[in-house]
Amino acid sequence: MKRLSYAVIGTGAIGGYYGGRLSLSGKDVHFLYHSEYDYVKKNGLDVKSVNGDFHLNNMQVYNNTADMPKCDVALVCMKTTQNDKLPQLLAPIVKEDTVIILIQNGLGYEQELAKAFPAQAIAGGMAFICTSRVSPGHIVHADYGALTTAYLDNKFDPETAEQIKEDFTNAGVPYTQGDDLNQFRWRKLVWNIPYNGLTVALRTTTDKLMQNPSSRQLITDLMEETVAGARACGANIKDDFVQKMLANTDKMEPYAPSMRLDYDNHRKMEIQAIYGNPIKMAKAAGYHMRKVEMLEQQLLFIEQNEYSAK
Amino acid sequence: MKRLSYAVIGTGAIGGYYGGRLSLSGKDVHFLYHSEYDYVKKNGLDVKSVNGDFHLNNMQVYNNTADMPKCDVALVCMKTTQNDKLPQLLAPIVKEDTVIILIQNGLGYEQELAKAFPAQAIAGGMAFICTSRVSPGHIVHADYGALTTAYLDNKFDPETAEQIKEDFTNAGVPYTQGDDLNQFRWRKLVWNIPYNGLTVALRTTTDKLMQNPSSRQLITDLMEETVAGARACGANIKDDFVQKMLANTDKMEPYAPSMRLDYDNHRKMEIQAIYGNPIKMAKAAGYHMRKVEMLEQQLLFIEQNEYSAK
Repeated sequence: MKRLSYAVIGTGAIGGYYGGRLSLSGKDVHFLYHSEYDYVKKNGLDVKSVNGDFHLNNMQVYNNTADMPKCDVALVCMKTTQNDKLPQLLAPIVKEDTVIILIQNGLGYEQELAKAFPAQAIAGGMAFICTSRVSPGHIVHADYGALTTAYLDNKFDPETAEQIKEDFTNAGVPYTQGDDLNQFRWRKLVWNIPYNGLTVALRTTTDKLMQNPSSRQLITDLMEETVAGARACGANIKDDFVQKMLANTDKMEPYAPSMRLDYDNHRKMEIQAIYGNPIKMAKAAGYHMRKVEMLEQQLLFIEQNEYSAK
Repeated sequence: MKRLSYAVIGTGAIGGYYGGRLSLSGKDVHFLYHSEYDYVKKNGLDVKSVNGDFHLNNMQVYNNTADMPKCDVALVCMKTTQNDKLPQLLAPIVKEDTVIILIQNGLGYEQELAKAFPAQAIAGGMAFICTSRVSPGHIVHADYGALTTAYLDNKFDPETAEQIKEDFTNAGVPYTQGDDLNQFRWRKLVWNIPYNGLTVALRTTTDKLMQNPSSRQLITDLMEETVAGARACGANIKDDFVQKMLANTDKMEPYAPSMRLDYDNHRKMEIQAIYGNPIKMAKAAGYHMRKVEMLEQQLLFIEQNEYSAK
């Protein structure tokens, strides 16, 4: 058994929860903070969780990666809207055998990062979790919590991968390592594409979209376009997947997805990750997701027009 | 020269303006009013117009078509959202040689009405005008004013048609009689489809939509889908028409189209006229207007969801 060191790059609701669980279970975890640095350094991190509340004190916190030690595993948990800074941000903490896991939305960012770090093992992490940061140093974990990862290619050490899985599992996080990153990314988009954008464009929540027959049909159309885009890109998604996603969402509590929270707080939305890149990749593979593209066009208008008015 | 009698069915901003001009020029015009009946009967109709203000007193007003005389020309100026009542409403005033002109938005309503009035001449009227009702009995005519008509088929008397043209022209209304109703209806939709729906869906005005590159591209996409739908339905629209529409709109003052005004006042929107019917007809002719359909789905959600919340 190897003792791995972890760095959490961007400690928001996701990074705080997963990094916090690892830290609580005795792992060596280093947290990068920005605006909350002073608060957390002094007061620690407080997590109210459906799986049990916890509080961390004397955390290893930093406000600059240049001050951080090199790590075995970098958990990138920041929004993709900042990903252009990622190579520079990661450079000081990455060594030859560092595993970089992007626990982020979207498509294509692992491939992009591989250009800057061609020697390192890079994985995507799909978090199935409802968690939010309610104030500096305070996170509420309301539901779910599973993490699924898949490596970009075969360039990873199986023993380290197994250890990462063991560390998360021991920390109480249901962890699955899959082997088809492209498919996992696209499966997540089948949910993210309709609900993130439509809750913003129509200023509503998931339950209202599901109840109205017109918006429910639109959700179905957007999901089916996404499945067609996925298949064009070589991701094998089964025929009943759309109906399963709809049925799962019917069972969920009324929910405002991350993009709706970003919109409400006038934070930059992950339009490129969830719409721009998938549309571009599907189009390059021969399929034009027209309704998905229209949603992207509306979101870009909303972001550029309404944000600037504030 | 025949002296024609006119009935205005639904005297809002459009009917009040055109009927008012005809009445002012000495024609025999009968106005159907609903909620404004008492006010207008007592106070008359006041029109502030870029082409000269005028006031009408002692108008021939009614609140029920059963009380109206049969007329030579019925100008139907109400919203299409009430068109299911039209056969019943028109029955008392229509005789065998009555000409019925639908000065309305949308597609397919002349054909629909012909089922109830198979013997009568039916025409569509495309109003190119900025006019609005600001309070009971008060209309503001801000810009333009031309009226283009086209008959559904050859079942009309050319002499009467010529007289109608003369009457409007003498009343100061630029009037053109074309011969391709299908093409005129579709040409108007090329403008109506993007601007009506998007100003509601994105809570904005035409100028903001034109300035932002994403929404401008979306407008172009919606126009091009409409042109493709038109062509599938046999309406010959030229290649440069979209660019001309965009250039014309660039020159317009910031504008809230009728659907946006309906939305702001929680009045039923003309979703079926401007979206439902054209989508259905294009689809039946083999072309699926996907982005136009998405806009319809969003508008139906907005109407059903937000209106019911009030």
